[in-house]
Amino acid sequence: MSPDTLDSTFAALSDPTRREILARLASGEASVKELAEPFEMTLPGVSKHLKVLERAGLISRGRVAQSRPCRLEAAPLWEAADWVGRYRRFWEEGFDRLDDYLRGLQSGVDEGGGRG
Amino acid sequence: MSPDTLDSTFAALSDPTRREILARLASGEASVKELAEPFEMTLPGVSKHLKVLERAGLISRGRVAQSRPCRLEAAPLWEAADWVGRYRRFWEEGFDRLDDYLRGLQSGVDEGGGRG
Repeated sequence: MSPDTLDSTFAALSDPTRREILARLASGEASVKELAEPFEMTLPGVSKHLKVLERAGLISRGRVAQSRPCRLEAAPLWEAADWVGRYRRFWEEGFDRLDDYLRGLQSGVDEGGGRG
Repeated sequence: MSPDTLDSTFAALSDPTRREILARLASGEASVKELAEPFEMTLPGVSKHLKVLERAGLISRGRVAQSRPCRLEAAPLWEAADWVGRYRRFWEEGFDRLDDYLRGLQSGVDEGGGRG
């Protein structure tokens, strides 16, 4: 896994419009025009985002000259998931602590109910 | 999950030094001085990265005035993992295609061996 790939993947994902473009492409290929519609953006505005996604390897473009449909490429997302997944035990510990805390609150409520 | 959180999380993760700082903090709390050592960076240089990580909620700082040890905070990493995980089926499909391809190559080799 190259650090450069992670740099460009995470940078590309740091923009909400680019994340929404990927979400749209998850349901199938789309042209620039189709991608631009929900954002009320100009075609050059969307093209700029697509260039960032393409440089990061997150999308590829078809060769049909007029439409060049965009397609989701998942490999960089796998690398990002792999990196973030190394920290899984930390958030699981956090959830466990929250569970304990909530269980403590609940047993306090139950005891209070018993006395009432 | 707020889009702003994902924006700042992914932006913070797009820098290799910041990712290494998080990796260091995964093995325990550390002072700015301890974090600066492996990078041959100035303390202000490291402090700048720590500010980005702190604003993104990826670390918290202790209250001991002199050292203010840094601590990993996993909640934003969980949100990032959750977002990226939505695309799991895409990279799994990619791996399946690669598997099929390699199995195809292997059976070609086996058949070749039988004829040889």
